[in-house]
Amino acid sequence: MGTYGFGVDIGGTTCKIGWFRMDGSLVEKWEIPTDTKEDGKQILPDIADSLHQKMGQHGISKEEIGGIGIGLPGPVRSDGIVPMCVNLGWKDKDVSKEMEGLMGGIPVKAGNDANVAALGEMWQGGGKGCNSIVMVTLGTGVGGGIIVDGEIVAGANGAGGEIGHITVNPHEHISCNCGRNGCLEQYASATGIARLARERLAGEHEASLLDQETEVTAKAVFDAYKQQDHIAAEVVREFARVLGKALSNIACVMDPEAFVIGGGVSKAGQPLLDAVAESYQKAAFSACADTRFALASLGNDAGIYGCMKMILG
Amino acid sequence: MGTYGFGVDIGGTTCKIGWFRMDGSLVEKWEIPTDTKEDGKQILPDIADSLHQKMGQHGISKEEIGGIGIGLPGPVRSDGIVPMCVNLGWKDKDVSKEMEGLMGGIPVKAGNDANVAALGEMWQGGGKGCNSIVMVTLGTGVGGGIIVDGEIVAGANGAGGEIGHITVNPHEHISCNCGRNGCLEQYASATGIARLARERLAGEHEASLLDQETEVTAKAVFDAYKQQDHIAAEVVREFARVLGKALSNIACVMDPEAFVIGGGVSKAGQPLLDAVAESYQKAAFSACADTRFALASLGNDAGIYGCMKMILG
Repeated sequence: MGTYGFGVDIGGTTCKIGWFRMDGSLVEKWEIPTDTKEDGKQILPDIADSLHQKMGQHGISKEEIGGIGIGLPGPVRSDGIVPMCVNLGWKDKDVSKEMEGLMGGIPVKAGNDANVAALGEMWQGGGKGCNSIVMVTLGTGVGGGIIVDGEIVAGANGAGGEIGHITVNPHEHISCNCGRNGCLEQYASATGIARLARERLAGEHEASLLDQETEVTAKAVFDAYKQQDHIAAEVVREFARVLGKALSNIACVMDPEAFVIGGGVSKAGQPLLDAVAESYQKAAFSACADTRFALASLGNDAGIYGCMKMILG
Repeated sequence: MGTYGFGVDIGGTTCKIGWFRMDGSLVEKWEIPTDTKEDGKQILPDIADSLHQKMGQHGISKEEIGGIGIGLPGPVRSDGIVPMCVNLGWKDKDVSKEMEGLMGGIPVKAGNDANVAALGEMWQGGGKGCNSIVMVTLGTGVGGGIIVDGEIVAGANGAGGEIGHITVNPHEHISCNCGRNGCLEQYASATGIARLARERLAGEHEASLLDQETEVTAKAVFDAYKQQDHIAAEVVREFARVLGKALSNIACVMDPEAFVIGGGVSKAGQPLLDAVAESYQKAAFSACADTRFALASLGNDAGIYGCMKMILG
């Protein structure tokens, strides 16, 4: 089983690396740049070099390493193949096999970064103590990760947890990045919240704190909301209504123990969580009306924790 | 491991029992009445008697029985407790433990009937060859069962697969049985389809085959649809639009390999399946637009097959 493990969260600009003990405690973390040149062919060798270097510094043999978990920004099929990862330049890549080759046979598991982050939050973050959660990541877009009985639901096409593309408003006239209309992401992402605010500010309205902003952001909306601004309150109500209803529908499918809310937008904290939970409870099927809501707590480290958890199983 | 297993599907009026070989082949099936008197206290003893009798007739010892799977019409928590089963009169009942006691320690597993039927269809029915499916049961109501990596997703509150209560139309003024408005069940169940037809027939319309019906049923609607009746076509289009869209949203959560459609309404067969699949493909997130659609094929035996599969794991 080994004494240590590595969690590697590959992003489009940096790879975050965590060195863990097998009991799950973090020994050290660091970052290296992601070299996406020439179809990202150096990404895995660069990571392997960094791991070998760290092992050399501390006199750790490969027998002491129980496994390496890798998260990456694209779908990972159940056979471990990454069919396509635009941000890294990868296509039909067997990440686990290649990395195992580079690391002298240390076992490697790969997963989608959003799913892996959900696993990390379930293990050591906002969903600690749970065995099944739905993680909702509110960033530039809306991502998600579904964990059932401690396992990632990756999906037959790697689209498990793509909850940002649930259709919430079939009458929406503006298109989502995915080409369809009325996706959750268009209302509950940072971009979506800013748009909802701009639409209201463009119409006739009583003075609002948001009038002073040169560029309205989701952060500005939540800051104004905490100061009882009426436009911000309208926007947050709409955001929470749409998100709460979507989560109530997810509950009729998965019925998780908890919803864990993360991503940049979730920095608005408890007031955001309360608004979403209240809207959820109003909309929910009675059997699952009491599902717990929690804020993600690992921030950018959720990925390396989840990668480590993949190894531990 | 034993040579044989029993699958027991407990319904409100009869218990269906299947005697299987451990390779999954059915040896014999039969039914006994469900005695719901006095909080259903005789249900398990009656089943145990029937199993003992069958074993006696064929000279089978309990060592030859690998396990017993039980499906029942209510939620089953992950610890095996049935908190409430209105149709059987049960409350806070440890079904597995009681049945194991009655059967001299033969291992028993219990599950919700809709989930168990989904497992059966995945194993030997419409979803054969798959490892993850969403089963949709179109009957008086709309039920469902979610299977991920060969395991039932029961849910933290036993509400996994309650897809009939996904909200598809927040503007609906008629209430669902669950007390909320605009549930999938209100449009995609036999009752819902009949209602959609009645609403159209009540308005001004060109002559329809359905005008001759004294009571319009879902079956009559699909029969007329196969004869190109225009009112029936409208109703089926609406039914398929709502169901296809709901399934496209489920795909953004679970991304199953296949959707398996069963229940009384599904007897309409391929034309129904085609209508729903076409609507799904129009609505679906691109990564999962090609998900397979299949008709359930085990009918009322899905439950006993799924019960047997629970034992096999």
